[in-house]
Amino acid sequence: MEIYQTEIRLKPRSRGFHLITDEIISQFSEIEDFGFGMLNIFIKHTSAGLAINENADPTVREDFESHFNKMVPENQPYYKHTTEGPDDMPAHIKTTLTGNSLQIPITHGTLNLGTWQGIYLCEHRNNGGSRKLVLTAYGE
Amino acid sequence: MEIYQTEIRLKPRSRGFHLITDEIISQFSEIEDFGFGMLNIFIKHTSAGLAINENADPTVREDFESHFNKMVPENQPYYKHTTEGPDDMPAHIKTTLTGNSLQIPITHGTLNLGTWQGIYLCEHRNNGGSRKLVLTAYGE
Amino acid sequence: MEIYQTEIRLKPRSRGFHLITDEIISQFSEIEDFGFGMLNIFIKHTSAGLAINENADPTVREDFESHFNKMVPENQPYYKHTTEGPDDMPAHIKTTLTGNSLQIPITHGTLNLGTWQGIYLCEHRNNGGSRKLVLTAYGE
Repeated sequence: MEIYQTEIRLKPRSRGFHLITDEIISQFSEIEDFGFGMLNIFIKHTSAGLAINENADPTVREDFESHFNKMVPENQPYYKHTTEGPDDMPAHIKTTLTGNSLQIPITHGTLNLGTWQGIYLCEHRNNGGSRKLVLTAYGE
Repeated sequence: MEIYQTEIRLKPRSRGFHLITDEIISQFSEIEDFGFGMLNIFIKHTSAGLAINENADPTVREDFESHFNKMVPENQPYYKHTTEGPDDMPAHIKTTLTGNSLQIPITHGTLNLGTWQGIYLCEHRNNGGSRKLVLTAYGE
Repeated sequence: MEIYQTEIRLKPRSRGFHLITDEIISQFSEIEDFGFGMLNIFIKHTSAGLAINENADPTVREDFESHFNKMVPENQPYYKHTTEGPDDMPAHIKTTLTGNSLQIPITHGTLNLGTWQGIYLCEHRNNGGSRKLVLTAYGE
């Protein structure tokens, strides 16, 4: 087995859920070298997460944003960590609900995703800026 | 280190949380070949997830279903993605809350789960049908 | 590629979210042996989880506890699994919301975490006791 690792930056996105499958694959052609393997995608932040979900209808991503805002609202009376703005503490909680890394099988040189699966950047800050990812692929 | 990968289908389940530990192990005997390793289980769908939780009392799984239905209700006024039925958009959100892959250590040829841990299929559609999994084991 | 695996016990913690980055690193010096690799941390329990989040301000961890208690309250009328106390069934659900394993890239012998990222033990029982982790590192 062999392992490759690289670090990339995503272009900045607005608050919300965004499809980034192509932006990742295009920056890590080493995926093609593996017959069987795994890709790990790790985001080095605490207010933006990663997920795998529906890749076709943009309203799915809008509904994710609406529901996450309801499930983890801003300005709750029990929040103590408020100095970085009303979007900050909810962003930390939302990040942990989706998680900050993904494991995707590689099969015959491509990500073995289901037909409707795409990779989401879950950007929870109003101005999150460019996000850093570590990509690690291993296999044979 | 070596790596094995296979793709299996689970038998169809009703909406809810289901123990599938035995159905997975029985279809991937390669786990026994590893002294130390990892098993990744990846579900190729966006409306059913995977989790590890209590393996003994069936009411735990019923309570999961009750609480997920409360935390992510159907028919919310802000849902825009509604064409595939009232269970569809909640199923996407629930899937991302549990996640769609698991990493389990392999030790001396068996999954190194805690005494009370089992693998759950979290089926969020009313009629989800048979679900496809990619199983990847690696180690030495 | 090579793989190392060990099992450790964390010291007992009170209910809440706790930083455990140093307690893990200090018990697994094999991380230093890898130029490029991955660390998997797996918790062998169903009522305590793992997460990666903000490592600086302790009120972030307090807000996590407050919000998880609101999102998954005790004593809901639909809970059937109640024999182990009011904190038990919520602990199972909370554990699945954070997840019970982490994948962290290793780069040049250290965990490649972001500046503000730390590893959390999410202890959801009132008296959870010492928790067991399996640590698996692999790479080259």
